[in-house]
Amino acid sequence: MDRSSNHAPVRIRWARSADAATIVRLIRELAVFEKLEDHVRVTEADILRDGFGPQPRFECLLAEVDGVPAGFALFFPNYSTFEGRPGLYLEDIYVVPEARGSGVGRALMARLARIACERGWTRFDLSVLHWNPARAFYERLGFDHGADWLGYRLEGHALARLAEEGGET
Amino acid sequence: MDRSSNHAPVRIRWARSADAATIVRLIRELAVFEKLEDHVRVTEADILRDGFGPQPRFECLLAEVDGVPAGFALFFPNYSTFEGRPGLYLEDIYVVPEARGSGVGRALMARLARIACERGWTRFDLSVLHWNPARAFYERLGFDHGADWLGYRLEGHALARLAEEGGET
Repeated sequence: MDRSSNHAPVRIRWARSADAATIVRLIRELAVFEKLEDHVRVTEADILRDGFGPQPRFECLLAEVDGVPAGFALFFPNYSTFEGRPGLYLEDIYVVPEARGSGVGRALMARLARIACERGWTRFDLSVLHWNPARAFYERLGFDHGADWLGYRLEGHALARLAEEGGET
Repeated sequence: MDRSSNHAPVRIRWARSADAATIVRLIRELAVFEKLEDHVRVTEADILRDGFGPQPRFECLLAEVDGVPAGFALFFPNYSTFEGRPGLYLEDIYVVPEARGSGVGRALMARLARIACERGWTRFDLSVLHWNPARAFYERLGFDHGADWLGYRLEGHALARLAEEGGET
């Protein structure tokens, strides 16, 4: 018996439509952690439609310990025009407080890296809040912080206003 | 006759497979502008496969002035788990030097905003190099710089190394 760890084994599996409520719950928990819970509008119907419908917008892994959800990772492809290849963009990763420090996060990240490599996706990208201690974890895994790049976003009324100028294609 | 501008009219249209060589050329010009030309590996075959094959990875608009390519915008959907909706991620936008200042960039951005709104995509995101003067242009259009978020990337050997840890799903 392997006594190098006293943790229960972590199982990583693909999420299914029956997991939609769990995914919404974990997204909400992540938003609370990020102090962004006021921004959460996602519903179970959104997750069913966009994760498990005819036009999937994301893929999702669930981590389980003793059959109980311990975390999730939700991703979709982006595309590098310099590489001429897709990459993996990790939108969300979250480990429940009770399971932290037991290798769940690392198991999820390693599975994601494997998925990227198997598909010929050449990059694994994510965004993280500057105060999030997970930065040190990502750096230990070999992630580089692309400090030269800044993110910009247009949404709400400003998006609608610019859209009014855009003619038909 | 509208004499408010002496610019030739800008036409924005969807790129077609016959534009693949033009797209590669414009990607290379953008990379030179960004001082990243050493990173460009994309080929015409990549653009044909990933833009115009059975599994499109991006969509692309071309801007033309007097029938000559004046710029392009290449995008794909991302996904907000807080919104429960896709967004538009603008990977590349570029206007050739001869056409700058004539409204090509704004016409491309407005068309992109319209596409996002028509599809029910709630955000329009992009990344820009910190020294790029286009930042002022994006800010005039209403874009916000999400200063709280940092981008991280894993690629190359570090990605392959982590992938080795990731078991089968």
